Amino acid sequence: MVTRSDCVALDAADRLAPHRDRFRLPEGIIYLDGNSLGPLSTSVVDGMTRAVAGEWGEGLIRSWNSAGWVDLPARVGDRIARLIGAEPGTVMVGDSTSINLYKAVDGARRLRPGRRLVVTDSGNFPTDLYVLQGVCSAAGLDLEVVAPDRVLSAICDDTAVVALTEVDYRTGRRHDMVSLTAAAHAAGAIAVWDLAHSAGAFPVELAGVGADFAVGCGYKYLNGGPGAPGFLYVAPSHRDGWRNPITGWFGHSRPFAFEPVFDPAEGIDRAAVGTPAILSMAALDAALDVFDDVDLAEVRRKSLALTDLFIDLIDEHLPELEVITPRDHSSRGSHVSLRHEDGYPIIQALIARGVIGDFRSPDILRFGFAPLYLSHLDVFEAVEHLVEVMASDEWRQPRFAMRLAVT
Amino acid sequence: MVTRSDCVALDAADRLAPHRDRFRLPEGIIYLDGNSLGPLSTSVVDGMTRAVAGEWGEGLIRSWNSAGWVDLPARVGDRIARLIGAEPGTVMVGDSTSINLYKAVDGARRLRPGRRLVVTDSGNFPTDLYVLQGVCSAAGLDLEVVAPDRVLSAICDDTAVVALTEVDYRTGRRHDMVSLTAAAHAAGAIAVWDLAHSAGAFPVELAGVGADFAVGCGYKYLNGGPGAPGFLYVAPSHRDGWRNPITGWFGHSRPFAFEPVFDPAEGIDRAAVGTPAILSMAALDAALDVFDDVDLAEVRRKSLALTDLFIDLIDEHLPELEVITPRDHSSRGSHVSLRHEDGYPIIQALIARGVIGDFRSPDILRFGFAPLYLSHLDVFEAVEHLVEVMASDEWRQPRFAMRLAVT
Repeated sequence: MVTRSDCVALDAADRLAPHRDRFRLPEGIIYLDGNSLGPLSTSVVDGMTRAVAGEWGEGLIRSWNSAGWVDLPARVGDRIARLIGAEPGTVMVGDSTSINLYKAVDGARRLRPGRRLVVTDSGNFPTDLYVLQGVCSAAGLDLEVVAPDRVLSAICDDTAVVALTEVDYRTGRRHDMVSLTAAAHAAGAIAVWDLAHSAGAFPVELAGVGADFAVGCGYKYLNGGPGAPGFLYVAPSHRDGWRNPITGWFGHSRPFAFEPVFDPAEGIDRAAVGTPAILSMAALDAALDVFDDVDLAEVRRKSLALTDLFIDLIDEHLPELEVITPRDHSSRGSHVSLRHEDGYPIIQALIARGVIGDFRSPDILRFGFAPLYLSHLDVFEAVEHLVEVMASDEWRQPRFAMRLAVT
Repeated sequence: MVTRSDCVALDAADRLAPHRDRFRLPEGIIYLDGNSLGPLSTSVVDGMTRAVAGEWGEGLIRSWNSAGWVDLPARVGDRIARLIGAEPGTVMVGDSTSINLYKAVDGARRLRPGRRLVVTDSGNFPTDLYVLQGVCSAAGLDLEVVAPDRVLSAICDDTAVVALTEVDYRTGRRHDMVSLTAAAHAAGAIAVWDLAHSAGAFPVELAGVGADFAVGCGYKYLNGGPGAPGFLYVAPSHRDGWRNPITGWFGHSRPFAFEPVFDPAEGIDRAAVGTPAILSMAALDAALDVFDDVDLAEVRRKSLALTDLFIDLIDEHLPELEVITPRDHSSRGSHVSLRHEDGYPIIQALIARGVIGDFRSPDILRFGFAPLYLSHLDVFEAVEHLVEVMASDEWRQPRFAMRLAVT
């Protein structure tokens, strides 16, 4: 049995604990939804003042050069590259994750002409499924959607692209990137990874794994703010062959020469399209300051400790909530999901108490554990609240019954 | 001959003059580049503090509902709709102008199967040309790029789409939207308009003209900040037929039901793709406050007065600078361009004096006249500076000779 004082002792020994002070978490909130939207940090507050009042307000158009806006997508890309094991100059920041997936997959399938299949799994995030449906439909390919544990056997010599999200947004199940990427390559297919619930949560080794393309999200574990730009990784082996299907001026080799004919930039710059959303990107850039002195292996160790603790406490106190996240460390991301048929009102009652998790249709309560600002005591107290919610009737109050549009 | 005191008198009678106080223009700057990046306004400073510290910092994930982030793209779209003569519920804000053009044109050409041509003109902004090249190449269509005054005669019964930018970024020449849209329709083609240098600069009547699709830019005359989201207009007649080629979750009819199969939203919501860039969009939303009590017909009258004044002063004092912008009001946007073989060092010397215009390759000096924050005296003094630059040798200094990456 884990006690409150055990958690206090664990926190006292936690080398990541001081990082909490870099975030501006509201008083009285235990925030277990950083896997959906990471919190505001002090460096972002300062960075936004600098970008808005200074660079834009004072510098005006001159800041494209003087403040380096023009290089921001590649510069922030290199900062993210370090967190996902990518080579310098292989990551471009900008546009949404969905649009980056479109660019990656539509470009990738053209690298395997004659092959008929795109393979993905049913645990993939819906927007990924939608993008793949759109690409396949327009290109005359078949999209094969299999159960997560059937992906390996679904890959065949007619597979053009294997497009997967490493961590299942619903269950927290983590794919084995090494074996799946190797299987794709063995079949002559291209591996595209979505790192939405990976980047910033634990070490990713894109180059080591040999991934071909990857996309990811700036607003979850990277804490870049609501709707922060996504990112797109293109492996060095594809830097010349891959073409971005959306050909805009920021992807041109000489964007400011205003030439009449498109000529793709060399390297990762061709992943860009239009003028980058500088203000949103400045927030993401500043948010990454938090990671400057962070060892992601340590983040991973603490993540596993926090999710283990949460699972143990649920098992002990709330057996009526089914833990659907894998207990095996190698198959787990950084969030834990519980199943209960009244999951929606339960999570609403919990949020009303200041413990913010979220709900995923039809019956899943989801809790994210971001090690940079959460303590073991947070986990303990969150479960205490959940125990009280379940023991009382408060979640049955009508005010919690209405379904909101939760993202 | 126009004198300084004439300009002072014109400013005293200018009903738009008080709007200047809403902007935070730096001291000592005459800003003639609002057609490239509009300046910061006080409402944006306040709006960004609210969005960052309040909605994100305090509200966290809850702000998707409580702060209305989820509706922001359509809500800001409706505010822009009012400025471009569009029906409510027809404009979606988000993504870059280039990406919106891709969505519009790739979706539009599918509405005219069997037709082989996309028509545009050589004065179109390069990113538009690049996007059209990409769409045509992927779809097996021919892109016909003709001189701006040859568009009308190039439209034929094999034309699927006519895609034009209303105001030429280089010359300031304004197309006649009425006749060109009518000609496209008479030939059975679809008219797609880029309003980058139109929206917020003068009244646009998309519904009146019968335009099929339009895109535009948030960071020029709308003053939404560097890389502000663009917008996409879809005429009511296409709301059911048009399909967005990039199918993401924000374009789904029930995005938060997390359904496995894409089902396009009804109406303008299908123009969205991924999670919207809320911080950049919040800046644009706040920037539009400036337009709340503005009559765009009055903006247009002042714009013509300012550009007339500038052209007259150039004719009078600097005949060596060729005015390439049409003198006919109906063919003029809100900027004026001058040609000089040493345009680059001249504009740099002028910027060093605090008069910010810009340069467009190979030999064009470009000056934007945004009536909400510019006075007649600004125009007079800008020309005074330009006269001094040309009369002296200051623009021949080596420090002005290096070519910068100007956007």
